[in-house]
Amino acid sequence: MKKRVVLALGGNALQKNGEASAEAQKKIAESVGEAISDLADKYEIIVAHGNGPQVGNILIHEEAASTEKAPAMPLETAVAMSQGQIGYWLTQAINNAFIKKGKPSKKIATVISQVVVDRNDPAFKNPSKPIGQFYTEKEAKALAKEKGWTVKEDAGRGWRRVVASPKPIDIVEKKTISELVSDGVIVIAAGGGGIPVVRTKVLKRLKGIDAVIDKDYAAEKLAELVRADVFISCTAVPNVYINYGLPEQQKLDQISVKEIQDLKKYGYFKAGSMLPKVEAASAFARHGGTGIITDIDNLRDALNGKAGTIITN
Amino acid sequence: MKKRVVLALGGNALQKNGEASAEAQKKIAESVGEAISDLADKYEIIVAHGNGPQVGNILIHEEAASTEKAPAMPLETAVAMSQGQIGYWLTQAINNAFIKKGKPSKKIATVISQVVVDRNDPAFKNPSKPIGQFYTEKEAKALAKEKGWTVKEDAGRGWRRVVASPKPIDIVEKKTISELVSDGVIVIAAGGGGIPVVRTKVLKRLKGIDAVIDKDYAAEKLAELVRADVFISCTAVPNVYINYGLPEQQKLDQISVKEIQDLKKYGYFKAGSMLPKVEAASAFARHGGTGIITDIDNLRDALNGKAGTIITN
Repeated sequence: MKKRVVLALGGNALQKNGEASAEAQKKIAESVGEAISDLADKYEIIVAHGNGPQVGNILIHEEAASTEKAPAMPLETAVAMSQGQIGYWLTQAINNAFIKKGKPSKKIATVISQVVVDRNDPAFKNPSKPIGQFYTEKEAKALAKEKGWTVKEDAGRGWRRVVASPKPIDIVEKKTISELVSDGVIVIAAGGGGIPVVRTKVLKRLKGIDAVIDKDYAAEKLAELVRADVFISCTAVPNVYINYGLPEQQKLDQISVKEIQDLKKYGYFKAGSMLPKVEAASAFARHGGTGIITDIDNLRDALNGKAGTIITN
Repeated sequence: MKKRVVLALGGNALQKNGEASAEAQKKIAESVGEAISDLADKYEIIVAHGNGPQVGNILIHEEAASTEKAPAMPLETAVAMSQGQIGYWLTQAINNAFIKKGKPSKKIATVISQVVVDRNDPAFKNPSKPIGQFYTEKEAKALAKEKGWTVKEDAGRGWRRVVASPKPIDIVEKKTISELVSDGVIVIAAGGGGIPVVRTKVLKRLKGIDAVIDKDYAAEKLAELVRADVFISCTAVPNVYINYGLPEQQKLDQISVKEIQDLKKYGYFKAGSMLPKVEAASAFARHGGTGIITDIDNLRDALNGKAGTIITN
């Protein structure tokens, strides 16, 4: 039996130096494809990518060029669009990596994924995640009135819409994803943290909601639901560090949930940066799996216990 | 054994009276979801939808609001985005139709699909399919020079980019799609005719190419590749007619490939309208399957041989 791995890949990982053209991002996707194809002989693989810069640009285009005839798509649909976009690039890159190796028949599939959140999640009371373009105060307040948006001033750079970042509680396509990976398919799923949906109160139907689900939390939830053995949060550095960049910098390698949670209490991990990764990997380890934080170059070694920050219970 | 059905659904089917908001299109998707859910007890179902108006609006937004920091996505990536967008709406609508019926656990998956075309397809020598926004002659010619586009004057309405509409020759994700539907999943695939890709000459790698693949031809190719029993082109009218709208109008019901191809020679079916549907359904019937042309309200009856234009060899 191959070990089942869920890999959370940052949306920033496809943009180097902020180069946002399709060509530049596909070029970077090639190396991601090679790294993933290298794992396929020994592991079942699900890739859950981020979409921060990509969905940001989609929204900027949609909003800036919105007309009555061609109205802007809402955030939840824009997430679905970014799943198609990035999923396509990754699918093609992984395919090409296998063709390069002379194994062109490997199956790879991007599955559009809806992630269920709770409409009573406290995050909806305090939207904090800025998305889309910058506006003047006047424009922002007019849009807030017109569209029911929450808008906030963003660090002196202008006004932006802010949305909630609720916790993922279920993934609609979990069974299909699980069956695909059991059948030997490399699956790309829960892209951008998933399309946020709620269940309607009475009829329990699915309904999209404008929100941003943290990609690491969504990937960890998926790892639980498909009974993965390993959850990897793939980031820009090979390990988690404390006092990063200081003389007393210390690399974390094998560590228990309790130890890393103690370090968290000392404030070592920053929100919006290493904190969600540490929290997601810890949550997965608490469920009995292995939680790893590392970079793309160390994936294979980390899975062999020889690199990365490896969290167990 | 359930019969396997590939359903080609027009992208126009989701826009009534040109209402292009996400809300309006999701509303229409609900009735499509109900019709599809009604078939699931008796048939294996793959839905291959169009994307004409949707990818058109994505391109309009991408091009009109393109900046150096947030550059426009090319057509091939825009097709992937439209697969995510429409796939999400359909997935959710079919899910909700099952929840309404009290069968909420049915599996539904949208698979991002690459469709291989031949770079020597004669269509690339004569690009004819207009896409994206209108430009002035001067703008259009400048863009043609800058981006290598072919541009043409469009019926007195302004200048537009035109792209090739090559024939589909293979579908990269065919095995995954086939296995999913065998496992009881309702699959949405080959959206918008698929993301057009070519194989590079020497290394045979996949590479996206800006083109538009006819949705009916791509769906028919998919039906062949997954060994479907029935191919249905779902359109706005219950049947194919000759002399449509005239006093001598005649409805076609059961008809052989030879008979309908003879009618084609008399010029009864218009290019860009009924012709590709007749050609796709005929091609599928020549391969031994049943090719049907009908509307969404007659799907079930047509599958029972009681409605629609049914083409057999």
